[in-house]
Amino acid sequence: MKHPVTREFTLAELAERLGAHLEGDGGRRVRGLATLREAGPDQVAFVANRSYLKDLSATRAGAVLLQPEHAAACPVARLELANPYLGYAQLSQLFDPILAPPRGGIHPAAVVADDVVLGERVEVGPNAVIEAGVELGDEVVVGAGCFIGAGSRIGAGSRLHPNVTVCHGVVVGARAILHSGCVIGADGFGFAHDGGRWHKIAQLGGVVLGDDVEVGSCSSIDRGALDDTVIGNDVKIDSQVQIAHNVRIGDHTALAGCVGIAGSTRVGRNCMLGGGVGLAGHLTIGDGVQVTGMSLVTNSIHEPGVYSSGTGAMTNALWRKNAVRFKQLDDFARRLARLEKRGREG
Amino acid sequence: MKHPVTREFTLAELAERLGAHLEGDGGRRVRGLATLREAGPDQVAFVANRSYLKDLSATRAGAVLLQPEHAAACPVARLELANPYLGYAQLSQLFDPILAPPRGGIHPAAVVADDVVLGERVEVGPNAVIEAGVELGDEVVVGAGCFIGAGSRIGAGSRLHPNVTVCHGVVVGARAILHSGCVIGADGFGFAHDGGRWHKIAQLGGVVLGDDVEVGSCSSIDRGALDDTVIGNDVKIDSQVQIAHNVRIGDHTALAGCVGIAGSTRVGRNCMLGGGVGLAGHLTIGDGVQVTGMSLVTNSIHEPGVYSSGTGAMTNALWRKNAVRFKQLDDFARRLARLEKRGREG
Amino acid sequence: MKHPVTREFTLAELAERLGAHLEGDGGRRVRGLATLREAGPDQVAFVANRSYLKDLSATRAGAVLLQPEHAAACPVARLELANPYLGYAQLSQLFDPILAPPRGGIHPAAVVADDVVLGERVEVGPNAVIEAGVELGDEVVVGAGCFIGAGSRIGAGSRLHPNVTVCHGVVVGARAILHSGCVIGADGFGFAHDGGRWHKIAQLGGVVLGDDVEVGSCSSIDRGALDDTVIGNDVKIDSQVQIAHNVRIGDHTALAGCVGIAGSTRVGRNCMLGGGVGLAGHLTIGDGVQVTGMSLVTNSIHEPGVYSSGTGAMTNALWRKNAVRFKQLDDFARRLARLEKRGREG
Repeated sequence: MKHPVTREFTLAELAERLGAHLEGDGGRRVRGLATLREAGPDQVAFVANRSYLKDLSATRAGAVLLQPEHAAACPVARLELANPYLGYAQLSQLFDPILAPPRGGIHPAAVVADDVVLGERVEVGPNAVIEAGVELGDEVVVGAGCFIGAGSRIGAGSRLHPNVTVCHGVVVGARAILHSGCVIGADGFGFAHDGGRWHKIAQLGGVVLGDDVEVGSCSSIDRGALDDTVIGNDVKIDSQVQIAHNVRIGDHTALAGCVGIAGSTRVGRNCMLGGGVGLAGHLTIGDGVQVTGMSLVTNSIHEPGVYSSGTGAMTNALWRKNAVRFKQLDDFARRLARLEKRGREG
Repeated sequence: MKHPVTREFTLAELAERLGAHLEGDGGRRVRGLATLREAGPDQVAFVANRSYLKDLSATRAGAVLLQPEHAAACPVARLELANPYLGYAQLSQLFDPILAPPRGGIHPAAVVADDVVLGERVEVGPNAVIEAGVELGDEVVVGAGCFIGAGSRIGAGSRLHPNVTVCHGVVVGARAILHSGCVIGADGFGFAHDGGRWHKIAQLGGVVLGDDVEVGSCSSIDRGALDDTVIGNDVKIDSQVQIAHNVRIGDHTALAGCVGIAGSTRVGRNCMLGGGVGLAGHLTIGDGVQVTGMSLVTNSIHEPGVYSSGTGAMTNALWRKNAVRFKQLDDFARRLARLEKRGREG
Repeated sequence: MKHPVTREFTLAELAERLGAHLEGDGGRRVRGLATLREAGPDQVAFVANRSYLKDLSATRAGAVLLQPEHAAACPVARLELANPYLGYAQLSQLFDPILAPPRGGIHPAAVVADDVVLGERVEVGPNAVIEAGVELGDEVVVGAGCFIGAGSRIGAGSRLHPNVTVCHGVVVGARAILHSGCVIGADGFGFAHDGGRWHKIAQLGGVVLGDDVEVGSCSSIDRGALDDTVIGNDVKIDSQVQIAHNVRIGDHTALAGCVGIAGSTRVGRNCMLGGGVGLAGHLTIGDGVQVTGMSLVTNSIHEPGVYSSGTGAMTNALWRKNAVRFKQLDDFARRLARLEKRGREG
């Protein structure tokens, strides 16, 4: 489904907001974004990279965001700028119906403790529950059904979508986006084993999220055992991610869906972990490390670069023949060495 | 624990509902289902396939669903039909205490916007929150604590279990079942990188679920960036699944628990993905593809069939010896070729 | 962030609670726990194992938990006991601000059915919803926004953190800890295939959790098809775990984050499954089995011990060369055998 049209801008307005050079009718009004192929005359399209150029000549878009070098091939109005994909990101914010400035106000069906400190224009949705000692910065939006535990602080401009849980003693920086179903600050998984059974270690640390952090739906960031679990600035976390206690993640790192990071592992700045990647506990992953999807990392990584493990899918028939040989690899190695030795001696 | 007995049928009634041939006392009353081994005289059992036949002769069930060819071996009343497992599925619906027709009514502790369009016999539980512009079809059930965002539409006969989140601008078809904790329509994971940091791309598309879709607990289906994320009719999605933005899934496809599908990948009709399978982004998976558990798919698959990757568990001692050889495989290949060449030359 | 100081004990009090031998000033007051390196004079530190001994001589802690054999190296007051890590676990409970005894009471914004049976000092938070026929034992705490479905029973001393969902007909033992976002008792994933489409099998079993079970945030334990899904006593389940219908897990078993267990598999007592481990359906895993992170188990395991699969990450360049050889392993094996045969014959 398409959203109802909610906002309209002239091309001149968009050019000014983006700092782009406009060629075309500045008075033309547009109402949304679309791909080069699907855009109509009231929508803006973009050439994010060369692979899109093939669609440019036939576009019906009202205007196209592109680099100056592609201007000649554009049959319609154009907004020229160095990074059209960034321009697309910036315009997308304008057209998002959910990103209107908060109206402010506490819904009467929210349950907010008396001593909660509320910034300007804070908005709290119905059935949200906010415990004692919580501080919400200016323009924080707390969605319906959210829970914020005692003593937690949410920085200015942050948005908690509906049904988010922030446990007690959690600090969230400015401009965070927490998606529905995520849980920040549940207990880490810590037990002492004694007498044939588990004895729970209370998780006394908290969670600290820096500024501009995004956490996807149904993701978990557990609280620390003694010290805090710490997520740096501008860290982007997708859905279904598990971050265990006392993990520390550096600024600008991005974690794709279904990533799992075990306890006390440190991940550097500007890292990218692909979907389903697993990091064992107590590792150190340096800055600028990229790990491809579903890889298992059991050792620290100190050099930037791309890392991988696993094998890609093949037909089950081919896989059955080959996977069974995995258990024989050490045997192969020894037999191969024997043959080579015999060859040299023979 | 066993549920309290809530419904009772005669064998004649069941035979009629199933279109089965009854041999035995049509007036016998039964109150539930059980396996051949555990069923008592007031329960119905079934022979789903040949592996169950060994339990047939000793069953104490009140009646057994089976194929006519197995009738002779049945010591009790029998309901003969071509697909006994289907018959079991159909009877299971009768005995499910939660599947009573909705009583209808909006709980006084629900928060429902004034302009919400309500079909006949809609039921909304306590503390559910339904925003402006939502449409709920006939006999929709919205469980306690659910959130339905602005402008979303839920088709007739659909059931949202407690604490489900449906974000704004989502379309759910008829007879959907959304389990607790699932989140439909949270933002996809999209950012432009510029100046050493991430710039969010607002996710302006929606999510469209076809008819007869089921989504398991704590699963995420993210909204599209520009176009919608689209889930076909009769698609069955288990718990803890992540479906990224702009994924499209064809009719009758089933995804087991912990599957992750990255952005813009298309999965065909009648596919089955085993537990923990990961599909990379921007792939095309054709119709009738099955992928076994925890396989990683990084290339498109155009032929129907069964696909696999990975290796099964072995003792850690055996694994340590062999896994270390994985890094030497290319070296093995070269050495093997050298030996063969030498053999041919020698 | 650090929690506000909430409790204070003398070393003599702690020694008595732990049954530890105190050397030092019994009147010294302490207010929390920290590592040897970070502890100040009002905090207690611990020597969990020999690797911490290097930090002992320089510690500024108010007291240290340690084994008697390490007493000589301790520069401050000490609490000597056989298992200092257990001692740490026990003290951690004392200092956890959330583990105060429940104040009791039903919040006026909770929705509790008339016939719910409430033990002594039960506490129900705002916007929790508790359906008919539920029984809550003494000192049960139900957090804000939780849902407990019809007929479920929660044992004495159990705590449901905010936004937990317990579906109908679930039994939770004593002293359970259910973390936010977990869902106990959603439908298992069962369908009959007929006529080109899926027919739902209603899930008529329940879920039974033993005593002292912990379930992490956003984890799912599905209800059984006919019989129950059964989790033993003292089973510890981390975040983002999926347990399918009719799984049975033995006492004292621990499952790390992102584990997935498919339907009807039985896991023994005292097992440990590492993060991201996947167990196929209908397996039997014996007692005392440990599986390392992200391993795939497709066959039953009858002997205790450690099991593994997969391969660890390497540089992408190295991985590309080697992973492609995986499809050639069977070919390698045949060629190797041929060379050996030729060698023997030659």
